[in-house]
Amino acid sequence: MAGNTFGNIFKVTTFGESHGVAIGCVIDGVPPGIALSPEDIQKDLDRRKPGQSEVTTPRQESDTVEILSGVFEGLTTGTPLALLIRNKDHQSTDYDNIKNVFRPGHADYTFLQKFGLRDHRGGGRSSGRETAARVAAGAVAKKILAVKGIRITAYSLVIAGIKAEHIDLTVIEKNIVRAPDLTAADQMISAIIAARANGDSVGGVIEAVIENIPAGLGDPVFDKLDAKLAHAIMSIGAVKGIEFGAGFAAALTRGSVNNDQITVNNNAVVSRANLAGGIAGGISNGEPVVFRCAVKPTSSISLHQTAATQDLALTDITIKGRHDPCLCPRIVPVVEAMAALVIADCILIQKTIR
Amino acid sequence: MAGNTFGNIFKVTTFGESHGVAIGCVIDGVPPGIALSPEDIQKDLDRRKPGQSEVTTPRQESDTVEILSGVFEGLTTGTPLALLIRNKDHQSTDYDNIKNVFRPGHADYTFLQKFGLRDHRGGGRSSGRETAARVAAGAVAKKILAVKGIRITAYSLVIAGIKAEHIDLTVIEKNIVRAPDLTAADQMISAIIAARANGDSVGGVIEAVIENIPAGLGDPVFDKLDAKLAHAIMSIGAVKGIEFGAGFAAALTRGSVNNDQITVNNNAVVSRANLAGGIAGGISNGEPVVFRCAVKPTSSISLHQTAATQDLALTDITIKGRHDPCLCPRIVPVVEAMAALVIADCILIQKTIR
Amino acid sequence: MAGNTFGNIFKVTTFGESHGVAIGCVIDGVPPGIALSPEDIQKDLDRRKPGQSEVTTPRQESDTVEILSGVFEGLTTGTPLALLIRNKDHQSTDYDNIKNVFRPGHADYTFLQKFGLRDHRGGGRSSGRETAARVAAGAVAKKILAVKGIRITAYSLVIAGIKAEHIDLTVIEKNIVRAPDLTAADQMISAIIAARANGDSVGGVIEAVIENIPAGLGDPVFDKLDAKLAHAIMSIGAVKGIEFGAGFAAALTRGSVNNDQITVNNNAVVSRANLAGGIAGGISNGEPVVFRCAVKPTSSISLHQTAATQDLALTDITIKGRHDPCLCPRIVPVVEAMAALVIADCILIQKTIR
Amino acid sequence: MAGNTFGNIFKVTTFGESHGVAIGCVIDGVPPGIALSPEDIQKDLDRRKPGQSEVTTPRQESDTVEILSGVFEGLTTGTPLALLIRNKDHQSTDYDNIKNVFRPGHADYTFLQKFGLRDHRGGGRSSGRETAARVAAGAVAKKILAVKGIRITAYSLVIAGIKAEHIDLTVIEKNIVRAPDLTAADQMISAIIAARANGDSVGGVIEAVIENIPAGLGDPVFDKLDAKLAHAIMSIGAVKGIEFGAGFAAALTRGSVNNDQITVNNNAVVSRANLAGGIAGGISNGEPVVFRCAVKPTSSISLHQTAATQDLALTDITIKGRHDPCLCPRIVPVVEAMAALVIADCILIQKTIR
Repeated sequence: MAGNTFGNIFKVTTFGESHGVAIGCVIDGVPPGIALSPEDIQKDLDRRKPGQSEVTTPRQESDTVEILSGVFEGLTTGTPLALLIRNKDHQSTDYDNIKNVFRPGHADYTFLQKFGLRDHRGGGRSSGRETAARVAAGAVAKKILAVKGIRITAYSLVIAGIKAEHIDLTVIEKNIVRAPDLTAADQMISAIIAARANGDSVGGVIEAVIENIPAGLGDPVFDKLDAKLAHAIMSIGAVKGIEFGAGFAAALTRGSVNNDQITVNNNAVVSRANLAGGIAGGISNGEPVVFRCAVKPTSSISLHQTAATQDLALTDITIKGRHDPCLCPRIVPVVEAMAALVIADCILIQKTIR
Repeated sequence: MAGNTFGNIFKVTTFGESHGVAIGCVIDGVPPGIALSPEDIQKDLDRRKPGQSEVTTPRQESDTVEILSGVFEGLTTGTPLALLIRNKDHQSTDYDNIKNVFRPGHADYTFLQKFGLRDHRGGGRSSGRETAARVAAGAVAKKILAVKGIRITAYSLVIAGIKAEHIDLTVIEKNIVRAPDLTAADQMISAIIAARANGDSVGGVIEAVIENIPAGLGDPVFDKLDAKLAHAIMSIGAVKGIEFGAGFAAALTRGSVNNDQITVNNNAVVSRANLAGGIAGGISNGEPVVFRCAVKPTSSISLHQTAATQDLALTDITIKGRHDPCLCPRIVPVVEAMAALVIADCILIQKTIR
Repeated sequence: MAGNTFGNIFKVTTFGESHGVAIGCVIDGVPPGIALSPEDIQKDLDRRKPGQSEVTTPRQESDTVEILSGVFEGLTTGTPLALLIRNKDHQSTDYDNIKNVFRPGHADYTFLQKFGLRDHRGGGRSSGRETAARVAAGAVAKKILAVKGIRITAYSLVIAGIKAEHIDLTVIEKNIVRAPDLTAADQMISAIIAARANGDSVGGVIEAVIENIPAGLGDPVFDKLDAKLAHAIMSIGAVKGIEFGAGFAAALTRGSVNNDQITVNNNAVVSRANLAGGIAGGISNGEPVVFRCAVKPTSSISLHQTAATQDLALTDITIKGRHDPCLCPRIVPVVEAMAALVIADCILIQKTIR
Repeated sequence: MAGNTFGNIFKVTTFGESHGVAIGCVIDGVPPGIALSPEDIQKDLDRRKPGQSEVTTPRQESDTVEILSGVFEGLTTGTPLALLIRNKDHQSTDYDNIKNVFRPGHADYTFLQKFGLRDHRGGGRSSGRETAARVAAGAVAKKILAVKGIRITAYSLVIAGIKAEHIDLTVIEKNIVRAPDLTAADQMISAIIAARANGDSVGGVIEAVIENIPAGLGDPVFDKLDAKLAHAIMSIGAVKGIEFGAGFAAALTRGSVNNDQITVNNNAVVSRANLAGGIAGGISNGEPVVFRCAVKPTSSISLHQTAATQDLALTDITIKGRHDPCLCPRIVPVVEAMAALVIADCILIQKTIR
């Protein structure tokens, strides 16, 4: 109800504040018998953790995960997995000067309007730090997907207006912005560093592709696969839009152009151009699911800005803290994680049908 | 689980197939004491019903709603509302020739992959006809919003590539494409008629604005207001993308440009340009919530197309049936309804907090 | 949330008031491909309907069910089933004299305290009439159970203090009180008729046995099979208690007596006396699940009683209406239906695990 | 779905195995602004912890709770509370000899049938140890109840066949069996010690009373207050039955006797004998809610017993481990906790109605 749980059968509940004792999650609905080690989870956490490169925040968090329950002799038991990540390098005093200030682009004002009080340190519950718990949960979901051979890959398609010219999934983890094109990656990195030097930040577009997904996942009405993925991805802090397949471009064409023209291949119906992004009527059609999401430039910038205080006076602020000049590189694993939660859930739901 | 229910507290479950006995919904969680008549609901159903103008399908359905329960002496009682709409003008024989064919752009193939069998008549459960039940539920939700003075207005911003030049909410219901600009509306109508004459269809972009929404609605983590709205809107059949505020454009700017610069007005914090679309950190900030969604061109076109049969042979088809050459005019009230469901739910959730 | 839905995967939402237009339900989560006809449902409705014998209320309701959706060519499609029963013989004027009176033993006062207004006619939503919708849903659940060979049988074990001496499941539908012992049945009938002649009513104990249930249904923590069954059965209006296996008697013995001593039979572990009632640690063990519930005497009696008015004055009332002098015969199919909903749900949940 | 979450708005998810790293819970839906300290929780944990008296197991667990999130400067923030209790004194080797044995009265066999594998150490997830997490959550729920002045008190009404002669709530925490009658308590203690000396165990009946509960809590259909309480209490491991008010005795009387005769007192409608146990039609009527539950004798006894092995051979076992000869004293706080979860949930649900 309070929106800290995601999923219907593969249910993930996250907890924790940016500068609290710890963050973590409980995953209920994990089938028994899946091999799972802390390393399986740590691998993805390391891709999201701060301080990993010259284009991310220097906050140092090892983000070491501890599995508290649900695994016995290396296998999941079907009981809840509790995953714990203790907070370490939180410099809460960085935030003392903005305790009573609503920062531009942040949830400070809205959180207070909703709850009547707030933990102002590092954004509290509204911090992007919460997504570490999602990445941990997503790593578990990926183990379920791996059984089916399903692979989810996200990457920075556009950063600071620079677009990858071609998509090579093998180079994504070989550059610090996680772009699928090494030449574009170099330009993106330069643009990020230049923005940071100006006390500013940049945005971008992340694309994700889900390969080898079977036909039949998703539901025909409210829980369309694209609707669930949209919910999942739009729940990531800085994301302002999402589109599937041809997306907004589809709105500008004609039916005769946009209809995925069907052919038959290897005993399956396939479309010629995957303009639908792998989903028809809310259900996967067996082709790769493809979506893109818009990531706004980081709200925390070191340039002087005007802000409002809790007494509703205006004030000039400079945000200290330690922030990412571009969120895309660290959001890439979060996008993968959220997509993995959706697909794992759809797989388990489908088991109730047939 | 099977995705036929939407909402957490204001819960709507729809039922029914395009050519079955009836469609309808049950709404649980409606607070008691709200004045409600069939006319309140019929008004919105009439905006969605087929055959309403020269640019919609000629299928004739009065879509007359019957309130079966939950209202006593003109007031809701706090018990479930069941709303029933009987199907009348279904020419199921139109579909006999495509009984074993997967139509391009439709859910025929995917539905069968999921469920193993299907009601092929008019798309069965995957038909857009199901959204009549949503519109009925949305009309009830709007009664809750009206108590708070919240207004939701959607309109065709773009059709067939023609964009409204200015936004005048007062003219939307005065033109058959529901555009906020009468000049653009005329051009849109001509474009739709031309496409239909060619046996083709066109797409468009629908924009929605939620005015007078209080700050504090939505949740900070998975159930962000934008995430819930994205889920709701993406669950409408032909929608392929959604964006909030500056949306995808935000991905291309810098933080210093995109941050909603805050000022103070009338004892509230407001931003200068509403680039965030009325939502910060997943919670409404008191400014209008603004989003746009991409509507693909209707998949059912009368041009010859190649399709696959259930035996996985290719075949040429011409879709008879009776279809909308552009979905936007009739989706406008569906977008409003889905947004109303989300906001009503958020209002009731917020009551559990403070 | 408002408690009109039961089940996690096999989800039943009921609607309707005793003297409203109709009652009914929507069932979501029914797997596709199950043969289902109106007769399958009507059969159980006829066992619950009023006016069926000399020991039930004379209210005449045919309780004819209409399947509005979710079935195509005789098979379920995996989409929601909507079932509708129109109300016919409601003599609402019978209730005019108690419009502002809180009847003893009824929900009149409490419903008003909760909702602030109420449909007083025949108990409105609080009427036992709502259980017809449950019986309809239960009949669908039983079709799922039948696939697995699971049988649920309930019967009147005790009525008016008269207890069945032996349990013969074959005679239950051969006597109008649904007792498993024809001799006891005759005595029960006489006792009911005598009570009614005095303007009074009697209570009883219903026992249910679930045969051929596989081991492994239910969950180890909050959703123990017995906990879910207790929730289901206690949600029937007049039920005041429930016990499983040895039940309250277990509280008085020693561990060495109460432990189900285990033996091995036919490649399964079985206990010697089924004192646990077929459930260990919340999960079925493969033996028959056995429980008993206490049914209070009907609250509506024609004897003079003291009641309170809405103005909080005392008043003498005589309840007209038409009521059952003993609820057990008509609650028997409701107990079966609620148990069937639980077991169907557990079967579908179990499919997500293994 | 997997049954590790309880509640609709005040949602508690527990995790952890008896001999794993830790147990704990996440509570979502706690309203902001409630004063909460670890001591508030520890107080109840100490009432449940092992080793607290001569009639409980000697296992030593301090059961020290750590609040990981959701509290800031002593107040709840409206975000999830994560509560952690690390396991310490688990002598897992005690269980090596029963690794492949199904113990009588335990979930060993059924858990394996459900999940296909199991953590055999100390019962794993099926252990009563899991209830420590519930007690922690219940302590938080009690803080919400305290705001409304609602008090929940449970006590051992019967142990080993010895029944408390009178109910004095002030002495419950002054005797180690938590009986409301000190004389009976002494006899109960002697009976427990005698049973343990024989290698055996005893059962009992726990009664609970919820005082100062407002009228209007609970729902009229599936989520009747008594149905939710029954679910909650029956989900405690050793509980085999529950009854409300007159309970099973009501089944044996007549309507004219059992109807709570209504009178008016202090501007409220009250009944003369509270035979209904404070609930009418599933909704609280403002009088104390009273229920009793049957607690079976502890299954773990040191007497020799016959058990089955995983290979389905019979074997003689003697259960080592360290066990409670009577569960009632330690279940009393668990009953209170579960009732508190239900009432807190009902209070928050009611806020959505009026």
